[in-house]
Amino acid sequence: MKCSCSAIAAAALLVGSVSAQTFRRLGACPTLGCVFPPDQADFLAGQFFDIRLEVHQPKNGSEFIGLPLDENFTFTIAKTGGAAKLVTDYFKIQDPKLEKWNFTWFEDLFARDAKTPTLVNVASKAYRRVALYEPGEYTATLTYNNGSKTEATWNVRDLAEERKAKNIILFIGDGMSTASITAARLIGHKSINGKYQTTMAMDKFPVLGHQMTHSLDSFITDSANSASALNTGHKSTVNCLNVYADSSKDPFDDPKVETIAEMFHRLTGGHIGIVSTAYIADATPAALVSHTRARSQYEAIVDTYLNGVQNYTWTDVPIDVIFGGGAEQFYPPALGGKTYQGKDYYDEFAKQDYQIIQNRTSMLSLDVKEKALGIFTVSNMAKWLDRNVYTQNMNQSLSPTGDKKPALDQPGLKDMTLKAIDILQARSGDKGYFLLSEAASIDKMLHVLDYDRALGELLELDDTVKATIAHLNATNCLKDTLILVTADHGHGFDVMGSVDQHYLAAQNVDRKKRDAIGVYEQSGLSQYINTGNLTYTDSSFPSNWDPRYTLFQGLMADPDRRENWSVHKSGPREPAAEIEEDSDDFYVNPKDGAEGIMLNGTLPVENDQGVHSLSDVPVYAMGPCQELFGSTYSSIDIFYNMAECFGLAKGSPQEDGTA
Amino acid sequence: MKCSCSAIAAAALLVGSVSAQTFRRLGACPTLGCVFPPDQADFLAGQFFDIRLEVHQPKNGSEFIGLPLDENFTFTIAKTGGAAKLVTDYFKIQDPKLEKWNFTWFEDLFARDAKTPTLVNVASKAYRRVALYEPGEYTATLTYNNGSKTEATWNVRDLAEERKAKNIILFIGDGMSTASITAARLIGHKSINGKYQTTMAMDKFPVLGHQMTHSLDSFITDSANSASALNTGHKSTVNCLNVYADSSKDPFDDPKVETIAEMFHRLTGGHIGIVSTAYIADATPAALVSHTRARSQYEAIVDTYLNGVQNYTWTDVPIDVIFGGGAEQFYPPALGGKTYQGKDYYDEFAKQDYQIIQNRTSMLSLDVKEKALGIFTVSNMAKWLDRNVYTQNMNQSLSPTGDKKPALDQPGLKDMTLKAIDILQARSGDKGYFLLSEAASIDKMLHVLDYDRALGELLELDDTVKATIAHLNATNCLKDTLILVTADHGHGFDVMGSVDQHYLAAQNVDRKKRDAIGVYEQSGLSQYINTGNLTYTDSSFPSNWDPRYTLFQGLMADPDRRENWSVHKSGPREPAAEIEEDSDDFYVNPKDGAEGIMLNGTLPVENDQGVHSLSDVPVYAMGPCQELFGSTYSSIDIFYNMAECFGLAKGSPQEDGTA
Repeated sequence: MKCSCSAIAAAALLVGSVSAQTFRRLGACPTLGCVFPPDQADFLAGQFFDIRLEVHQPKNGSEFIGLPLDENFTFTIAKTGGAAKLVTDYFKIQDPKLEKWNFTWFEDLFARDAKTPTLVNVASKAYRRVALYEPGEYTATLTYNNGSKTEATWNVRDLAEERKAKNIILFIGDGMSTASITAARLIGHKSINGKYQTTMAMDKFPVLGHQMTHSLDSFITDSANSASALNTGHKSTVNCLNVYADSSKDPFDDPKVETIAEMFHRLTGGHIGIVSTAYIADATPAALVSHTRARSQYEAIVDTYLNGVQNYTWTDVPIDVIFGGGAEQFYPPALGGKTYQGKDYYDEFAKQDYQIIQNRTSMLSLDVKEKALGIFTVSNMAKWLDRNVYTQNMNQSLSPTGDKKPALDQPGLKDMTLKAIDILQARSGDKGYFLLSEAASIDKMLHVLDYDRALGELLELDDTVKATIAHLNATNCLKDTLILVTADHGHGFDVMGSVDQHYLAAQNVDRKKRDAIGVYEQSGLSQYINTGNLTYTDSSFPSNWDPRYTLFQGLMADPDRRENWSVHKSGPREPAAEIEEDSDDFYVNPKDGAEGIMLNGTLPVENDQGVHSLSDVPVYAMGPCQELFGSTYSSIDIFYNMAECFGLAKGSPQEDGTA
Repeated sequence: MKCSCSAIAAAALLVGSVSAQTFRRLGACPTLGCVFPPDQADFLAGQFFDIRLEVHQPKNGSEFIGLPLDENFTFTIAKTGGAAKLVTDYFKIQDPKLEKWNFTWFEDLFARDAKTPTLVNVASKAYRRVALYEPGEYTATLTYNNGSKTEATWNVRDLAEERKAKNIILFIGDGMSTASITAARLIGHKSINGKYQTTMAMDKFPVLGHQMTHSLDSFITDSANSASALNTGHKSTVNCLNVYADSSKDPFDDPKVETIAEMFHRLTGGHIGIVSTAYIADATPAALVSHTRARSQYEAIVDTYLNGVQNYTWTDVPIDVIFGGGAEQFYPPALGGKTYQGKDYYDEFAKQDYQIIQNRTSMLSLDVKEKALGIFTVSNMAKWLDRNVYTQNMNQSLSPTGDKKPALDQPGLKDMTLKAIDILQARSGDKGYFLLSEAASIDKMLHVLDYDRALGELLELDDTVKATIAHLNATNCLKDTLILVTADHGHGFDVMGSVDQHYLAAQNVDRKKRDAIGVYEQSGLSQYINTGNLTYTDSSFPSNWDPRYTLFQGLMADPDRRENWSVHKSGPREPAAEIEEDSDDFYVNPKDGAEGIMLNGTLPVENDQGVHSLSDVPVYAMGPCQELFGSTYSSIDIFYNMAECFGLAKGSPQEDGTA
C-alpha cells in the first residue's frame, strides 16, 4: 500500500507495521485509511466486485493520533494516464449511506495477556457490484484525515476472450503437498530395484507447476482463503470466502468478489457441480458460490447453494449436482440438525426439483438429466481406510437422515465424481461445465496426525483422477476438458525412514524405542504392497496397512502426543486430549499411540492438532490450456488461467445490461 | 528380480524379504544369486559398465539352506527375441578369475542387540568395462545352485543421437525441497498484499518437473547414491558413487557405471568443471568422475579428479576447473592434511599444469585459458550468512594452506560459478562443457537444524542462477546452454508460522513459551525484508535476519534439542551434544537455543543431526531440451535427458576401438 500520510500517522504506521504481526488491526490495511480491494489486486475484465472503504480512528494504543473520526473521506479512481474520477462518477452509481462501528484488537501477545485491547472507531462506505472492463492499471485513492492518502494500484489483466475448453474439472487434494504424494506412491505402487512398475495418475500429467498459497495478510493460509484465491483471483484473509475482510461485525457485509463458477454461469450459461468428501458446507466446496467473512456460517452456506446470495444483488448460480457429507445442515432441528432458519433443507432442495439421495446405491441409479443433491453422512464422509479395511469403524450414528443409525452405504470420491460428470454432461449440453471434486480428508487426517488415513484419501483421489480420465476418454470428452489436480495449501509432512514395529514394542524406554527407526539405507523398501493377505481389485492401494516395517512419517508442528507410526485401526486418530474440560490445554491422549514414544509438541497448547504449512503445492494440468499451468506462480493465477481457458474476460458490459 | 528357485530357497527368500528391512544381506539381491546391474536397470546405448555376479551361501540364520557354495554358476545374456549367449561370448571377453570372500550381517535389530550375525560365503566373478549398443530389452540370467535362476531385465533406452545443446550447467541445491524454496522466497523477496514484487530466479524457469529420489534398495537416499543416479542413470545404494554395491570388502572393486561427464568427454571431447561449497571430495562433486562403494574415500577421490580411476581401465576425464573447500585432502600430512599416499595435492595438480589458487582475489584474476584448482578453506566453505552478516565467525583456523590462519577471503558460489564458466568457455571452444555447481550447505545446515543458514545458502544459489543466466546472455551463450536447477533429495523441512521472539524470551515455562508461536492468520507477514538496518546491494537477500517475528520452521525428524527459532549468530548450529565421549548418545546441546523450548527428538540417539526425507524434489529447466524436464519422473531420467540433449547415445562402438 503506497501511502502519503501526515508525520504523526507515519510514526504510528511504523510502530504498527513492525510490531503487529500476531494480531493486526486489519490485515491488508497497515494505514488508517483502508481500501478493499487493496493495493496490488488483480481483476478479470468484467468481474463483479464490491468496494469497501474504511477510515480508522484508534482511541488508544500505539496508533492513537487524537484526530476526530473523518466521516468526509473521498475516493477516486483513475485509469493510468487518465483523470481521477469520484467513484460515483466512475461507475455511475449513487453514494451509499455512511456506516459507523467500532472494534477492538490486541496489539501483541503481551497486550492480550494484560487484557489491554485497543479500541478503533470506523467510518465506512461500501459500493456494491461494480466491474472494470478495460485491461490495464488503475489507481484508486482514498483521501482522509485532512489529506492523508491511501493509494491502491489495481490491475485488470489483459486476457484473450476466446474460449478454449468446454469443461474444467478441478480436483483439490486438500492439504496435499509434494511429500504426501511421494509417500502415497511409496505405499500404493510397487517398485523393483528403484523402478516403479506403476505410478500415480498425477505422475502421468504432462504439465506440472507450483502455486504459492500464502494469504493476502499472512504467510500461512487456511482452506477458505486459499479456495477464494483459486475461485476469484483475489487472495484474502484466513476464514474468508470470496470476500475481503472488513472490520465490521456482520459476516455477510464484507466486500465480495465474483467467482469463476458465477462468471462461467453468468456469461456462458455453463453448468456447475460440487463434490467433496467433507461436510458440504466446508470451505473448499463453499468457495464456489459463497461470500462471507466467516467460513463457519455453514447453515447460510447451504442456503446459498440453493438460493444464492440473499442480502445483496449478486450473480445467481444454479448448481446441478452437490455430493458430500454434512447432513446436520440439512435435516431439521427437531432431529438434531442445525439449519438456516430451522428449515428442512432436504425439503427445500426437493421443492426446487432436486433428486435427494442419501446413499451410494441411490446415487448410482440417479436420473442424470435431473439435478441431484446427495448427502451421505453427518459430518465428514467416512475415510477410504474405514470404508475398505477397518469397516467396523463405520458403525457410528451418522445416518444422513438424522435417525442416528450408521451411514454404512457411503460412496467414495470416485463414485461421486463419475456420477457428477454424467449428470453435468447430460444437463449442460453444449454449454459445458465446471466441476469441483475435493478429497477433503487428506487435510483432515493430516490435522489429526493420522498419516495412514491421509495417504488412503490421497490414493483415492488419484484413483478418482485415473477413473475420470478413462471415463472422459470413453465418452470422447477428454479433448474438451481441462483437468487440474492441485491443493489449497500444504502440511509440513514428510517421510524420513521406516519403523520396526516389533522392535518398537519390545523396548521399554523411549530413548531405546527410537532405535526402531531406520533412516537412509536402513529405511529399506515399502512393505505396504503385496506382502499381506488383503487384496483389492484396484492395485493402486496398499495390500497391507499394518506391516512390520511402517513408515517413519510425521508433521513438523504438533500438539503433545505419543507416536507409534502405526495404523490407527479403531478410526481417525485423536492425538491430544484436553487436560480438563474447557481448559483449552491439550496434552497427550492417553488412549492414543500405544507402545509409542511420548513427544512434546511445539504448537500453543490450545491446539489439539497439526497446522498448515508454507510450502508451495503442485499443480497438475492436462487438456486444453494445459500449457498455462507450468512453472511457478501465485494461487490466484489458477483462477486467471481457468478464466482464460473458458474465455471469461469481457471488455465491455453484457448487452442484457447486467453489468 | 524375477526368480525361479528351489522350494527351499523360495521359503528362505520369503522370510528374508519380509523381515529384512533395517538390514539386508545385500540391497538389490533378495535371492542367493546376485546380478549387478540388477533387474530393471536402464542403460544409455554405448555406456560402459561392469558386471558383478555373486552366489551367496548363508552359513546360518533364516536363509541357511545347507547347500555347498556354488563356484560353477553361469551367466548368459539374450536380447529379447534372440538366443541366450554366455557373457564371454556375448561381449567377446575372457572369463575372469573366480573370487571368494565372506561377510556377516544382522537380520534385524534384535539380532544386532543379541550380537548374532549371519555369516555368508560368496563366490563371485566380475566382467569389466562392457557396453550394450542396441536399444531394447535384454535378459541377463544367472544360473546357480543346481538350476536356481536369477533373471535381470535390462533396458537400453532408444534415444536420438543428435546433439541439441552445446553446454549443460547442472545446479544442485543439496537437500533443497520445495518447502525450503518457498521459505527462501518468503525471507528474500518482498510481498505486498500477497503479491510478490520480485521472485526467485528459479520461479522464472519455464519448465518445472519433479524427480523421485529414492535409492535402488531403500526409499531414503543419501547424496552419493542420488548423485550417482543423476550422473549415470543407475540408482544404487547409500554411500555408493557410480558403482553398484557388491558384498566384498574392497571399496574400489564394485561394478562401475560410466558417468555423463565421462561419456561426454570420451565421445565429444567436451570439457568438465566442478564447483561446490562443500569440501571438494564430498559426494555430489565426487560423483562426476569417482567410482567407489565408500563416499568417505576422500583422498582417493581427490586423486581421481587428477589421475582418473587407477585400479581398472576406465574413461579418463581431464577436469578444467575445480573450485571448493576441503584443503585437508590437498596439503600434506606434515601440515595436518590427510592425502592420498601422503602426497601434496597442490603440487600434484600444479605438476599437471593447473593454476593453484587459495582465495577469492586470486580466483578473480585467473588466466581463463589455463586449468585451475581453487581450494579456499579447510572443510566446507563458509556460509553466506557468515561471509556477509556475522563475519566474526570467519575467524577460525581454516586457511587452505594448512597454516592454521583464518580463511577470510573466500568466494561465494556466484563468483566461483561465473569464473568457472569463463574458464570452460575459453578452453572448450566448439566442444562445449558440462559444469556442476553445487550449493552444498543447504543440506549441511538443514542437517544441523540451522534453518537461517540453510535459507541463506539457498538464496545464494538462486542469486548464482540469476547471475549465470545474465552472464550467459551477455556472452550470447544462453541459447546453447541447458540450465538445470534441482536437488539430490529433500529434507523434511517446512514453515508453519511465526515466532514472537520478545514473547518467547519473556515466558518461563516451555508450555507457555509455545504461545509465542503464531499460526494461520497469526503467522503475519515476513519481517526479514526491508525492516532492519542491514542492506545489501543485491535485494534478493533479507535485510534483517533477526527480526522480532521469526519463522516458525523446522524438520520433522530431529535429535533432542532446544529450539528458539532464532538466528544462530555465533556460527553454524550444533543442536545436540554427546552425553559423554564415545557414548554415541546425543542429547540437547546446553549451549544451543537459549530461551528456547526443550524438545525430545525421534531419531535414534546416536544421531546428532537431522536426516534426509522421501519427498520428490523440483527440477527447473531452461534452454535446449527444456521440454524433456516437465512432469514427474525418476532421478535417473535426468541423466538420460541430459545425455539425449548432448546426443551421447551410441548405437555402435567408436571407430577408435575404445569400445
